[in-house]
Amino acid sequence: MVAILAITPSLGFAQDATPGEEAAAGVQAILDNIWVLVAGILVFFMQAGFALVEAGLTRAKNVVNIFAKNMADAIIGILAFFGTGYALAFGNDPAADSVSKIAGSRGFALTGIGDIAEFGGSGYLNLSHTTFFFFQAVFAATAVTICSGALAERTKFISYLIFGAIMCAFIYPMVVHMAWGGGFIAQINIGDRAYSDFAGSGVVHMTGGIAALVGAFVVGPRKGKYAADGTPRAIPGHNIPFAILGVFILWVGWFGFNPGSELAADNLVGGIAINTLIAGAAGGFATTVVVWLKSGKPDLAMIGNGVLAGLVSITAPVGSVTPLMSIVIGAIGGIIVVFAVDFFDKVKIDDPVGAVSVHGVCGAWGVLSIGLFAKVDDAFLGANTPDGETWESSGLFYGGGIEQLIIQLLMVLIIVVFVGVCSFIVFSALKATIGLRVSDEEEVEGLDVPEHGLSGYPADVNYV
Amino acid sequence: MVAILAITPSLGFAQDATPGEEAAAGVQAILDNIWVLVAGILVFFMQAGFALVEAGLTRAKNVVNIFAKNMADAIIGILAFFGTGYALAFGNDPAADSVSKIAGSRGFALTGIGDIAEFGGSGYLNLSHTTFFFFQAVFAATAVTICSGALAERTKFISYLIFGAIMCAFIYPMVVHMAWGGGFIAQINIGDRAYSDFAGSGVVHMTGGIAALVGAFVVGPRKGKYAADGTPRAIPGHNIPFAILGVFILWVGWFGFNPGSELAADNLVGGIAINTLIAGAAGGFATTVVVWLKSGKPDLAMIGNGVLAGLVSITAPVGSVTPLMSIVIGAIGGIIVVFAVDFFDKVKIDDPVGAVSVHGVCGAWGVLSIGLFAKVDDAFLGANTPDGETWESSGLFYGGGIEQLIIQLLMVLIIVVFVGVCSFIVFSALKATIGLRVSDEEEVEGLDVPEHGLSGYPADVNYV
Amino acid sequence: MVAILAITPSLGFAQDATPGEEAAAGVQAILDNIWVLVAGILVFFMQAGFALVEAGLTRAKNVVNIFAKNMADAIIGILAFFGTGYALAFGNDPAADSVSKIAGSRGFALTGIGDIAEFGGSGYLNLSHTTFFFFQAVFAATAVTICSGALAERTKFISYLIFGAIMCAFIYPMVVHMAWGGGFIAQINIGDRAYSDFAGSGVVHMTGGIAALVGAFVVGPRKGKYAADGTPRAIPGHNIPFAILGVFILWVGWFGFNPGSELAADNLVGGIAINTLIAGAAGGFATTVVVWLKSGKPDLAMIGNGVLAGLVSITAPVGSVTPLMSIVIGAIGGIIVVFAVDFFDKVKIDDPVGAVSVHGVCGAWGVLSIGLFAKVDDAFLGANTPDGETWESSGLFYGGGIEQLIIQLLMVLIIVVFVGVCSFIVFSALKATIGLRVSDEEEVEGLDVPEHGLSGYPADVNYV
Repeated sequence: MVAILAITPSLGFAQDATPGEEAAAGVQAILDNIWVLVAGILVFFMQAGFALVEAGLTRAKNVVNIFAKNMADAIIGILAFFGTGYALAFGNDPAADSVSKIAGSRGFALTGIGDIAEFGGSGYLNLSHTTFFFFQAVFAATAVTICSGALAERTKFISYLIFGAIMCAFIYPMVVHMAWGGGFIAQINIGDRAYSDFAGSGVVHMTGGIAALVGAFVVGPRKGKYAADGTPRAIPGHNIPFAILGVFILWVGWFGFNPGSELAADNLVGGIAINTLIAGAAGGFATTVVVWLKSGKPDLAMIGNGVLAGLVSITAPVGSVTPLMSIVIGAIGGIIVVFAVDFFDKVKIDDPVGAVSVHGVCGAWGVLSIGLFAKVDDAFLGANTPDGETWESSGLFYGGGIEQLIIQLLMVLIIVVFVGVCSFIVFSALKATIGLRVSDEEEVEGLDVPEHGLSGYPADVNYV
Repeated sequence: MVAILAITPSLGFAQDATPGEEAAAGVQAILDNIWVLVAGILVFFMQAGFALVEAGLTRAKNVVNIFAKNMADAIIGILAFFGTGYALAFGNDPAADSVSKIAGSRGFALTGIGDIAEFGGSGYLNLSHTTFFFFQAVFAATAVTICSGALAERTKFISYLIFGAIMCAFIYPMVVHMAWGGGFIAQINIGDRAYSDFAGSGVVHMTGGIAALVGAFVVGPRKGKYAADGTPRAIPGHNIPFAILGVFILWVGWFGFNPGSELAADNLVGGIAINTLIAGAAGGFATTVVVWLKSGKPDLAMIGNGVLAGLVSITAPVGSVTPLMSIVIGAIGGIIVVFAVDFFDKVKIDDPVGAVSVHGVCGAWGVLSIGLFAKVDDAFLGANTPDGETWESSGLFYGGGIEQLIIQLLMVLIIVVFVGVCSFIVFSALKATIGLRVSDEEEVEGLDVPEHGLSGYPADVNYV
Repeated sequence: MVAILAITPSLGFAQDATPGEEAAAGVQAILDNIWVLVAGILVFFMQAGFALVEAGLTRAKNVVNIFAKNMADAIIGILAFFGTGYALAFGNDPAADSVSKIAGSRGFALTGIGDIAEFGGSGYLNLSHTTFFFFQAVFAATAVTICSGALAERTKFISYLIFGAIMCAFIYPMVVHMAWGGGFIAQINIGDRAYSDFAGSGVVHMTGGIAALVGAFVVGPRKGKYAADGTPRAIPGHNIPFAILGVFILWVGWFGFNPGSELAADNLVGGIAINTLIAGAAGGFATTVVVWLKSGKPDLAMIGNGVLAGLVSITAPVGSVTPLMSIVIGAIGGIIVVFAVDFFDKVKIDDPVGAVSVHGVCGAWGVLSIGLFAKVDDAFLGANTPDGETWESSGLFYGGGIEQLIIQLLMVLIIVVFVGVCSFIVFSALKATIGLRVSDEEEVEGLDVPEHGLSGYPADVNYV
């Protein structure tokens, strides 16, 4: 499924290309790299969005800890992905006959990659290793930061850091390898069908969401979240403007996340962008209607999650559905998230920001939606595989048969099991050793001063 | 004035272009689309800026409502523009001999656009329909969000949503059609002159500003804004950092708004960017001087509006004036805004954030400034019409005669009348039916809890 | 060292290039300009980051003043650089045999630049004067805003404005001219070696940091910063979320600052981006370890400064070191900053946000690190000089001899002396005339109301 290609012009000229055609292909290759870099910068900006959403939806007494975790996600995520993650995800051995099912084995700390020159082609279309690493590293930081919200307000900082490092160094890269790196998931075929997950509803968001679910389960609910009789109680976040500013920033970043995942500057990028735009809006709209009907008022915090639900949902199918279907997929995501948040509240998974519902549940929905609504038409949107082949398929809605849906379901199950087991082992080991949770006193006081030695909003000091 | 062109290389090769030239033209076309997409992403980011400016300049008790309105602007604006707006604005019929004066009629919900393939060329230079839709949709969301500030702190949420949907679905797209879509305004000619509004001082900002003026008039001033004797009273905003962060974000977004409106990646984009940079600075500088002289202190909230005034003012002439003239135009905008804010305060139009002054009045000034200061020189900056012709003109200052100024004035009048009448009908209908304004109790308490069920900055809850 | 080149294709074709090759070169030239413009927009966004970091790390009573200063940096910085700065920095006379050592003399207010057409080539690769001005102007605004933090909470607004204008109009442009403009620093050669400062650890950050040091020294410490016995006292900032959001925004902007400084869209941009990504993470990581060991807790405000320290440090060597060495350089920066902050605290330089340590000290470290760790390999990363020659060198670590390190040290000394003397004169003159410092009463009350007439977070006013 995956090939290690030399850098080749994407314009597909034969060997007798004229010098002019070759020159144009060279400019195209640079354009591809510049565009994907810009997209990666937008994805990196999402770190600020995640921090703001989580901080806004939790209490002021923990705000330093929350920003510290999100900054650490960027710091540790990048270093871990640099050290081992990139090699495990994409370090295929070009001399080997087949691609390893679980993990790559070449290019740790970016050394020794490629046959040609240092930092030659990544094997993914025209992208150099440098561009491709940048784009993948910021994705990795995103995957780990998703967990942060579900663990908020009661998790030890050092334990969170260790989990984050393991997530970015090992767990997430192996999921990536199984799918985008050509491993286990990519090797599943039913008839002529293979999995599809364009920008990572499953690979990134569901991976983060499942780890978040396991983490929230192992660490347990916040003190006071449940009344003596088990009724969940609302714990309002301290700064709604932060949360909604965060949603705007995430939406902006998603225009790098999805269109950048085309891994090239081509005619399909614009369509991917509008599907992203429209699905986010549809998610927010559907959530608005549902919460308004359900609770009598349009709860803004939930609407923000609805936008994110629409965006997570469209992330897998974004390259293979029409704009009208993007509305359907995003809106269903926006409906799902409302009931998922209720569900996890009831089963005593205390997820302060709804990360499990937004990224885990809607991530799964996004993967499955391809089996229902994919419509690939060469004149419109295709979905690139790593080796540049156009994947063609269609979902049930377009008469495409059940095979695609089955493969998508298998993909969801594999990620759930793999990430679930791995993260359960890590969280349990942390709990059994250095501990996963702060003391009751610290939790009541807030984590900021005990864990970090400063509070988020100190009153003005005047020594005069 | 408008032509529906096939996708053609912008490099202008003759029919006997070599394969290399054709390949280069293909890369250029992709570059055009990628650049305009990136510019559109920057424009989308402006939503966050508008939300922050409005929230910062109003009271804490309404901050949830304000973020809800701004999020709704993005959600509803995009969906409405997708459903009908794009078709009304740009859905010209290529088979028809002439372009409709008021509205297009093809391509609702992006279906059936174009003669060639789905999502082929938009007819605007090298842009595909997908890229062009993205760029225009985020513009539409901008136009509606301008109104939000003038209606702040007393408008019913549901009524605001209905107005926003009508604005993005019908009113704004028809203004766009009349100008950029080749309709009524574009068909005015005096001698060899036609209107010019490069990036929308008139089409976007004045449209939003006029609707804001009508809305503020119909809904009436906030309780307590005027003393018993009619004297306006200051109602300070609750978070100046939010407001100024918002101004910075808007300034950043404007580098997509103006340079992206070139609709191509070419040698003129850089000049448009520096005119935008310099005019914003000149607006802020002029306002600083004026308010310092006028009130004895440099009021930061007003300086922020001065920057925006400079940016709104340069938005129309940005492609046809020199950097030195950008300083003049931006500075005049920065002076105008101070006196306009005073004026509307006195005539009892209660506009909490100055949206009418910034976008309405300076938008009109920007359109008119072309008749005074335009200097088009092929070696420097031109202004593209939709059909790719270079529009050449010069204002009074460069000896260009009065014709251009007259056309610009006509454009202002047409937009004022059209938007004024349409929005007056919508606001009045809302007022007469479901009501435009919250109850006095809600207004005093703040809209957040009554309308949305949560407050913006809840104190930490501890159930222990 | 500097040449005024005509716009030439970067692909290096001979005179007998085919029409297709020429067309491709034309597209490449436009791509270069678009990319550098996008990078410049990211750099402009850093203004918001600087404002947030400074505001977050200082007291609520001064927050309006701090945002006012940062907004003024953008406004005045751009206008001053437009008026004189660009000409002094890059206005070389093509007719002259040699480049002036201290300052250029052509192109004030962007008039009369170039021999060809208005706004032709800048002489820097394929960049037009418009693109190049935009990129350099936003750099200038960055340089001045660095000083803002060190002067926070006690400096008169008008005096700050005057200093900022002189900095952007004269001091900073002359430093730029001496290095990037081909002047004094660029003319130093030892053997075949010349200075290297890819994106401005020295030219931008150290320049800002030295001016900050001098300013903080001349204006003196804040009231209450030192106890009667001289012990420094902590004055916590009022909003840690602002500060960390600011760090995220600065990190995002740095992906324009460094990769954009390549001044072209080529294969090296991706490597520059990952070095920037990794060094920032390494700086943050090293600071975390050091402060945790040193004080027992991971102080988030210091970790934020650690990320910035890593970024400042890599800014000079980013184009000539490997990713592994970027970790080393960034981590050393992250260690340095902790001890530098302590040092300046002890010697009674009161720098509320650590600007001197982050930008001044780590800026110097970044310049020097080239003499230690540079490894230029044509297959990987080169460092472009203004005339497009590839600068080849290697540091001590790669057996490159002591010459490079000596030149780098000379560069540091020259900038320290030049900026130190110039800014000392300006600050002293301000102190002796209109005064540099607010009254004791204003300082205790906070600068917002006395200087600007409004406070940052007014309580809701209800006149009912």
